[in-house]
Amino acid sequence: MTKVRENTISMLVRNKPDVLARIAGTFSGRGFNIESISANITINPEVTRIIITTIGNKATVEKLMKQLDRLIDIMHVDDLTGKEAAKREMLLIRMNIKDDKKEALMKIVNTYNWRIVRLDNGYFTLEITGAKDDIDGALSLLEPLGIDDYSRTGTVALEKRNMI
Amino acid sequence: MTKVRENTISMLVRNKPDVLARIAGTFSGRGFNIESISANITINPEVTRIIITTIGNKATVEKLMKQLDRLIDIMHVDDLTGKEAAKREMLLIRMNIKDDKKEALMKIVNTYNWRIVRLDNGYFTLEITGAKDDIDGALSLLEPLGIDDYSRTGTVALEKRNMI
Repeated sequence: MTKVRENTISMLVRNKPDVLARIAGTFSGRGFNIESISANITINPEVTRIIITTIGNKATVEKLMKQLDRLIDIMHVDDLTGKEAAKREMLLIRMNIKDDKKEALMKIVNTYNWRIVRLDNGYFTLEITGAKDDIDGALSLLEPLGIDDYSRTGTVALEKRNMI
Repeated sequence: MTKVRENTISMLVRNKPDVLARIAGTFSGRGFNIESISANITINPEVTRIIITTIGNKATVEKLMKQLDRLIDIMHVDDLTGKEAAKREMLLIRMNIKDDKKEALMKIVNTYNWRIVRLDNGYFTLEITGAKDDIDGALSLLEPLGIDDYSRTGTVALEKRNMI
């Protein structure tokens, strides 16, 4: 048995209406849960990059990759797990801050260089970016101050570029 | 005929293996293309928030929303189009900069307060956040300097919180 780990799978797909349904169906058909997903257009507006994180061991993920690679309209599949790559997420988080906790929040926001993007009726909305672990850490740090709600992107990733 | 526009649809779903496949299938079954998607867990680890942007007119999107609302494991569907909400994306972009363009890049990076997250063999990877239009603007600004590749999250969004 190989170790269960979080895998980051990056795909380039043709921008067709049913390609995401087939990809998601391939994951669920093999029993993989999609932990997070980010998809958006690339330099070529006909092509979408989809990045999915999923839990599984190396051997079963390799089988999944082969099946994804055979799907129509999937141009390229890459497993970025363990590869040297910039991997980042963004968290948009709304804090419900009591007056006596405002100073503590401001200190944390300044220390980590986070951005306040909205202020509504005493609710602060912060934007926080970083690796998955950084986002998890930010959530632990903010939790005792009063989290109201949040919205978190999937991971985006770019592999290290080597000289040709 | 109502006007075609970009719609932002936010869903809270139970974290089950096949829920994304059924959602994506509902979009493609009605002829909607998924322009971008972001999905990740919420405060409740059993619940995932999925945000999808799609082009369509108000009347057909309303029909789509009703159909999504009837799907099993979808707890809540909300159309954030035109609502007061913080809507943000993140762009991770790798620039291939010739020596004579480095100063121009640094000037732009400092002006807009973007972050350099990686430096590999002369390639700069920048992290840029903002509304969809800001990201489109950043891409236009960077294009003449030499874009090598990029990875873009879907939109994340939090609606304005009103006092209860």
